[in-house]
Amino acid sequence: MKLGRLNHVGVATPSIEKSIETYRTLLGADVIGTPFDLPAQGVKVCFIDAPNTQIELIEPYDESSPIAGFLRKDPAGGQHHVCFEVPDIDQAVAEMTANGATILGAPRIGAHGTPIVFVHPRDFGGMLVELMETPKEDH
Amino acid sequence: MKLGRLNHVGVATPSIEKSIETYRTLLGADVIGTPFDLPAQGVKVCFIDAPNTQIELIEPYDESSPIAGFLRKDPAGGQHHVCFEVPDIDQAVAEMTANGATILGAPRIGAHGTPIVFVHPRDFGGMLVELMETPKEDH
Repeated sequence: MKLGRLNHVGVATPSIEKSIETYRTLLGADVIGTPFDLPAQGVKVCFIDAPNTQIELIEPYDESSPIAGFLRKDPAGGQHHVCFEVPDIDQAVAEMTANGATILGAPRIGAHGTPIVFVHPRDFGGMLVELMETPKEDH
Repeated sequence: MKLGRLNHVGVATPSIEKSIETYRTLLGADVIGTPFDLPAQGVKVCFIDAPNTQIELIEPYDESSPIAGFLRKDPAGGQHHVCFEVPDIDQAVAEMTANGATILGAPRIGAHGTPIVFVHPRDFGGMLVELMETPKEDH
């Protein structure tokens, strides 16, 4: 395994709409995707493009959302996870598990349509890490 | 202003040495800088290269460090800030201030040797944002 691209930084927010306005007004973001729902993961998401990576805005889909839990602790929102690309999700899971990491659940399809997993934050010094199989059309 | 490159994600850690080992073992990081001190900012830092951006590991330099405060709340560490590049720091500060953002202090020289500022987290939904003038030799 070799450290892959940082696909995105995940940022929890109580309002994707307000966050978009902030990124547009203060930072000059101008490549902003259309927000969409991922009900199976309990989130609404929206990707904002920086020249070399993306910011994923994440809003709770409902009260049982993991993001709702995040916002109960930090109502304003904040950084939620970082996502690195891997060439093959099953191989990445096997290697990380062999090296002692705890993978949270089986691979599932993520916001970019490829398999993803999350790694327990205790394995990365309190940081939630997502691994995402690189979309084939991107490279 | 136009949203610039994500120069790095800043990650607070109680031990840069242990974090380096984690990134090396679990994610296969192999381009890892030499840790160095920034006593004026109260931190020790180390940059780990991903193909498209960097992770900045940040350890407290002393007990008065802002990172020491972070670790009192979250002892394991975690995501601390995101840093976007801007072509000119003074212009960025002027524009953001005009748009209502609160800039934390005057520009100072950051870990990459160019001027930086931080923006108040309340302006970005709880996320601490660093703006960094793009190093001239990089582009």
